[in-house]
Amino acid sequence: MKIDVYFTPNEFSDERLNEYLAVVVDVLRSSTSICAALKAGAKEIIPTDSIAGATQLALSISRDAILLCGEREGKLVDGFDLGNSPLQFTPEIVKGKALIFTTTNGTPTIVKARHAHRVLIGGFVNLSTIVNALEQSNHPVCILCAGKLDQFAIEDAVCAGRILSELQVRLRGDLELNDAASAALVLSQQYRNSITKVVSESHHGKYLKQIDMEVDLPFCADTDRLPVLPIFRDGKITLA
Amino acid sequence: MKIDVYFTPNEFSDERLNEYLAVVVDVLRSSTSICAALKAGAKEIIPTDSIAGATQLALSISRDAILLCGEREGKLVDGFDLGNSPLQFTPEIVKGKALIFTTTNGTPTIVKARHAHRVLIGGFVNLSTIVNALEQSNHPVCILCAGKLDQFAIEDAVCAGRILSELQVRLRGDLELNDAASAALVLSQQYRNSITKVVSESHHGKYLKQIDMEVDLPFCADTDRLPVLPIFRDGKITLA
Repeated sequence: MKIDVYFTPNEFSDERLNEYLAVVVDVLRSSTSICAALKAGAKEIIPTDSIAGATQLALSISRDAILLCGEREGKLVDGFDLGNSPLQFTPEIVKGKALIFTTTNGTPTIVKARHAHRVLIGGFVNLSTIVNALEQSNHPVCILCAGKLDQFAIEDAVCAGRILSELQVRLRGDLELNDAASAALVLSQQYRNSITKVVSESHHGKYLKQIDMEVDLPFCADTDRLPVLPIFRDGKITLA
Repeated sequence: MKIDVYFTPNEFSDERLNEYLAVVVDVLRSSTSICAALKAGAKEIIPTDSIAGATQLALSISRDAILLCGEREGKLVDGFDLGNSPLQFTPEIVKGKALIFTTTNGTPTIVKARHAHRVLIGGFVNLSTIVNALEQSNHPVCILCAGKLDQFAIEDAVCAGRILSELQVRLRGDLELNDAASAALVLSQQYRNSITKVVSESHHGKYLKQIDMEVDLPFCADTDRLPVLPIFRDGKITLA
């Protein structure tokens, strides 16, 4: 199986994704929040790549049926209902609702991935579920790390490597990797027993501590806590 | 000492480099060729980010005094004197000459780095010389990997990590690293005893084999073969 990893959104061309099964990885925190929201019963999540796009869309839909969610600089956006902490997405708040979702790194990457044959959303919280889906794929796979502000983010790279590592065991080593995929595999081996530490000590993790979001970090690092398979198609993320 | 690594040129903002001592790393092959040319007695190397820029500049200088050098898709450019194989830069050919140099990944990264406080050019071939220079620095350091076509290239990442690793020993561990620097360090430890192999089996290395440039690969991986310190200032690369 051919697997390419891209550490930042600038490294892949959206027009060349057609043949690929794409997995968008944004451990801190979009992937984790999307899994949490769907697990809690949200009907669908509509990712947008800008606040303007999100608010404009919200105006066109009955306000009762939707929640405006997301962050800029990690914080709640003025006038939004929810931020990007996965702990906020509880059944009491999101069940049956459509969520319009805009984040700094994650949702633009998801929107950019839209030309892929299939787009899944993955993080540590649904790692085995993602691996199960990839194992069945007849398409080449690309793992698109959201990174942070178009820069390398180690928590996404380690998560990508962990997906590859599990897949390698299942497929008995039969993977054809690009350079970034080989590097991700090495990183995931190095941090195999310290996922919470690498997430917590990453540049992004340290920033979230500074803005009092530390409570999110162990949640985002908790492997297989939310075994759901979010799929993005026709502009919406739903359970597959 | 604060050290940031960037795996691709898109990840750093040229305007934010002022305070930094920058090292541009393009193992395959610009960094290596620049070291080879200066070691062989080239007077100076003028990096340009386009073929048009290189040829226009050549027209403005006496043709006897200069050599037009570089590659596109790894191959000699029509009308150029030399390609980008470090083995071509012998004293017989380059001694006393000015070289105008344009490559796909390396020279655009060097040109982009021009706002840094100081810009050095590094590869495996001058690794210890680079580490010596960084050890003395009072400025924060950034290592700018050229990558390949704006994508991650493992040979550059491993070289960046190797520089960090040597520096860490000299400074007794006192380094403040960004995420990419931490990752580069892990990669360099993994490939510590297999530099030639990682260079040869990289995506770029495989491509160079395809176009019959295999002979360049062990040269580019040969640590400390060319102990020179290329510095880029006022538009020209010379020995420091």
